[in-house]
Amino acid sequence: QMPRGNLETVHHRALVLAQLRMWLDGLRFREAFECMRKLRINLNLIYDHNPKVFLESIETFITQLNSINNINLFLTELKEEDTTCSMYPRPAGGPVHPQPIPGKKKVDVVCDALRSTMESMDSNKFCLSILTAHVKKTVPELETALQKVHELRENPPKAPGAVGAEEALKYLLFLVNVNDLYEHSLGTYDFDLVLMVAEKSQKDPKEYLPFLNMLKSLEPNYQRFTIDKHLKRYRKALHHLSNCGDEHFPEALKLVKEQKLHSEALRLYAADSAHYKSLSCAYAEHLMEQQQAEQAGLLLWRCGEPVSALQAFASCSSWRNAICVAQQIPLPPDQLALLARDLAEKLAEQRRHSEAALLLDQYAKDCEEAILALITGAVWEEALRLIYMHNRQDITETNLKPALLDAVSTQTVFLETQVATFTRHRTRLAVVREQKEKAKLDMLDEDGPDCPDAELYSEASSVMTGSKYSQSNSRISSRSSKNRRKAERKKLSLKEGSPMEDKALMHALAEIIATVDKMREEIHSLLKALVLFQFDKQAEKLQLSYEEALQMMEAAVPEVWPEGLHSSPAPLTGPNSTANSIMASFQQQQRPAASQLDAEMPPPPKMRNGVKWKLAVLQ
Amino acid sequence: QMPRGNLETVHHRALVLAQLRMWLDGLRFREAFECMRKLRINLNLIYDHNPKVFLESIETFITQLNSINNINLFLTELKEEDTTCSMYPRPAGGPVHPQPIPGKKKVDVVCDALRSTMESMDSNKFCLSILTAHVKKTVPELETALQKVHELRENPPKAPGAVGAEEALKYLLFLVNVNDLYEHSLGTYDFDLVLMVAEKSQKDPKEYLPFLNMLKSLEPNYQRFTIDKHLKRYRKALHHLSNCGDEHFPEALKLVKEQKLHSEALRLYAADSAHYKSLSCAYAEHLMEQQQAEQAGLLLWRCGEPVSALQAFASCSSWRNAICVAQQIPLPPDQLALLARDLAEKLAEQRRHSEAALLLDQYAKDCEEAILALITGAVWEEALRLIYMHNRQDITETNLKPALLDAVSTQTVFLETQVATFTRHRTRLAVVREQKEKAKLDMLDEDGPDCPDAELYSEASSVMTGSKYSQSNSRISSRSSKNRRKAERKKLSLKEGSPMEDKALMHALAEIIATVDKMREEIHSLLKALVLFQFDKQAEKLQLSYEEALQMMEAAVPEVWPEGLHSSPAPLTGPNSTANSIMASFQQQQRPAASQLDAEMPPPPKMRNGVKWKLAVLQ
Repeated sequence: QMPRGNLETVHHRALVLAQLRMWLDGLRFREAFECMRKLRINLNLIYDHNPKVFLESIETFITQLNSINNINLFLTELKEEDTTCSMYPRPAGGPVHPQPIPGKKKVDVVCDALRSTMESMDSNKFCLSILTAHVKKTVPELETALQKVHELRENPPKAPGAVGAEEALKYLLFLVNVNDLYEHSLGTYDFDLVLMVAEKSQKDPKEYLPFLNMLKSLEPNYQRFTIDKHLKRYRKALHHLSNCGDEHFPEALKLVKEQKLHSEALRLYAADSAHYKSLSCAYAEHLMEQQQAEQAGLLLWRCGEPVSALQAFASCSSWRNAICVAQQIPLPPDQLALLARDLAEKLAEQRRHSEAALLLDQYAKDCEEAILALITGAVWEEALRLIYMHNRQDITETNLKPALLDAVSTQTVFLETQVATFTRHRTRLAVVREQKEKAKLDMLDEDGPDCPDAELYSEASSVMTGSKYSQSNSRISSRSSKNRRKAERKKLSLKEGSPMEDKALMHALAEIIATVDKMREEIHSLLKALVLFQFDKQAEKLQLSYEEALQMMEAAVPEVWPEGLHSSPAPLTGPNSTANSIMASFQQQQRPAASQLDAEMPPPPKMRNGVKWKLAVLQ
Repeated sequence: QMPRGNLETVHHRALVLAQLRMWLDGLRFREAFECMRKLRINLNLIYDHNPKVFLESIETFITQLNSINNINLFLTELKEEDTTCSMYPRPAGGPVHPQPIPGKKKVDVVCDALRSTMESMDSNKFCLSILTAHVKKTVPELETALQKVHELRENPPKAPGAVGAEEALKYLLFLVNVNDLYEHSLGTYDFDLVLMVAEKSQKDPKEYLPFLNMLKSLEPNYQRFTIDKHLKRYRKALHHLSNCGDEHFPEALKLVKEQKLHSEALRLYAADSAHYKSLSCAYAEHLMEQQQAEQAGLLLWRCGEPVSALQAFASCSSWRNAICVAQQIPLPPDQLALLARDLAEKLAEQRRHSEAALLLDQYAKDCEEAILALITGAVWEEALRLIYMHNRQDITETNLKPALLDAVSTQTVFLETQVATFTRHRTRLAVVREQKEKAKLDMLDEDGPDCPDAELYSEASSVMTGSKYSQSNSRISSRSSKNRRKAERKKLSLKEGSPMEDKALMHALAEIIATVDKMREEIHSLLKALVLFQFDKQAEKLQLSYEEALQMMEAAVPEVWPEGLHSSPAPLTGPNSTANSIMASFQQQQRPAASQLDAEMPPPPKMRNGVKWKLAVLQ
């Protein structure tokens, strides 16, 4: 923002800034400061101009200013903003000074540096400025400031003209809201200090004296708890309350529940105490509400509440823990079996068939159900293991073999649809790309080589495909890039003519490849089971279709994700090229790198060719 | 390749080609053909000039040439090479004609097309050309040609002047090596034909007659087997031999073993036959040699050789199958237990502790060893399950808890080293990048903006880092890009000053991120076990260090894999830009896309933030 006024003023300000910079470079802070005050130039510039040099010259700065008021003025005007970026930009080519202490805030850095220098120079003389430095920090250090006032009262400085407690307190009240100061004085648990602040404030003694007297009458731990609670410092409050003895535990439990201080609370009580148990139960209840049933179960189990723990574990299918707790209780065998069946049912719903089978086999003692669960889950080898373990070869004929043949046809049909979809998308992608290319060339023809909007081509080309979708063109900061990617992915649509149809197709193709590639293990184990039961023909056919599908997709990768998107095939320069022709040819290549290669464009999928799935006996 | 000679000839040839193209475009094949013969221009051009048009005009072509000899000349001169790409390049701007039938060879396409047209026009008249078309195919169809000769002999053509069997055979012998023809005549199993060829050949009847007479004396299937074997057509031979009855099975088995026709052989015999079993055993032996023990086991098991199958399965840790077979044999309990222990030991070596535990628990009936295996494998929940199942809570105190504490310190130390290595690589990467940037700028300064070698900068910059390694600059076809990537990955070295050090560092950083990210599940289960046994402090510490490590790495990703590598941050054009400055600034951005983004540059690793591992109770 330029200052208002006529051109002359503008010019004048630039000259003034040049002068100020010279003064600051020469460490002539006094001249700079006075000029800035007079011309109302933001004092932050003193620091912003060159933070490192300023921090190294603080003593010079203080000595030159030589006035508590001036120092206070500087401190109170401090802001996080860097004025050399906003109000007073550096002259072009000037050096940029980074924040000297990364991660710390500028205001805090300056306050701390000034304060410690003043304390080492003359803490009496600079007393009020020191207080200002405490108060001005981004999180004001009111208690420290109050503590200093209190010290002044306890040990009044002997030096003539030194600031007394009264004056310091008055000054603090001028800087800070009286109620804030009163609250913070309470937080020191120092009633002298509280009274001192209260007296200086406009508060009615009838209001605060009864409260203070009540507090004074309390047992020290409970007193501090009461103060902390009053000040909403609940963690501290809980800490003090935990030292107040058993009779106050219900109050503590209430506080924990209200303020959700469960983790804190568990650290304050012995793990073998009754209080610990009560707190654990309360915490577990809270965790259950937060959908953290397993952790609730762990807390309940370890504090000796196995029945509740069992409920918690069962509710979240943490079946191993559930079974262990059940056996610890111990649950009678029939109930254990029931529990196992319940858990197995839930696991089967989550397609965790192996685990369901284990429960059915070992705890419900129902090997038949266990084997059927494994067959449902296509866990062929494990199914066979249980069949032999329990000598139930009859199930091989009745269930296993038919299931194997079913699996072959299911997988074959699935592969066929995947291949068909893949081919459809691939063909469509070629069409879309050709259209875009054509649209781009048409644009170039229309506007001729002098067109200044070259960089708009690729943007425009997506519009050219005849859609009504529009692409937002808003500037994007690197910070928001994650959200942007999410938003852009949402824009992807496979609908014909959608502006990002090509990218949507690439995404869809990558997904199909990933899905089909993921089948390697499943197909491998199915093929082995088929061979074992002499279904060689079906196995050969399946192996062939899967292999063809994989090969077809692998062969399509260079076409769908051409290397050309990264490299430059066409010659760029030559005797006939102009700046514009070079630009244009670069735009064509570079744009993909800038926009397409972004989040929307998935990298070519990697196929796990290291996972061997083929059977030599079927070749 | 330009023809040798003085400039005049060169010029003349160009004019001739222009004339030829006009003739061919006008379907004036006769003029073209005669001119080409006279001037020794490769006849392939007749097809190559415009394959599609030629294939549509074959009848015209044949009619115009009107001479068996000319057609034969054209056929014999056919080559796979496209003469418009090699000898007679098309004039600039001329249309490029793709192969009309992709996937089929040009020579085959032309031979087939000519032959079928001639057959439909007058198969007697074009007899010799038809034979030529058969013989000239990339895999000569000698048997079909011979069959046609045989037919001529059986049914001599009545038309006057038609080619007889004798003449045709003579012609064939002129085209093809006599031994080849003799062998192929044998392959028709037609002794008349064989004799006809043999008589025409220079072969000594004393040589071939005994062999033919011996063959004639054989049983038909065995006869065909003998011929096929003689011709090294082993698959066919095996097929015929399998029809020769049981007494010939040993010979078949020998053939299968010698020629590795196991898969074929299994298809020829019934699955319940003794032969099938012998073949399966032979195949299994072969598969064992090929390190395919599991498949060998499957074949042995299904053909009723459980003892050998058990050995095969055990040798490759296919433990489920091994146990099933063992129970089918059935192995006595003590031997089954021994087998289970052996298998478990091997599995533990492969860090498959859960499976080892299952064997120890269920088959070796040694729950203690099973639990210890699970503890060794850090499978905490499953260990606890077995502890409760077998009521061995004593192991919790003696082994489980100490192992948990060990695991905490191991993981902590591991995380520390990973974080330290990560930080070291990251710092070094910043240094290397700065050096490269500086080297690039230095180059630009030295050469000035008119330097024509702008595209060499980035190549050169890697040399500038003071290494003695050099990057090969050879042209790369897209086909060899896979091998190239492999080779380039090998070049990556973390050694300071290595030319690709930056990429090597990025690889190393990506690997560390992947390693640490992979620990989520392990840390999660360890944390839960720690909480259960009240080791809250250790758990909290571990959770904190792991979280810090993950956050540090995630925060480093934008620095190590900057988005700037893909996009263009600097302004490119403006009133002061020149063609050269635009080029230079593009080179800087575009090069990374072309070379760095290639295989050597790993994409930013994706962290599995979806995998929740943190415990709320530890926060």
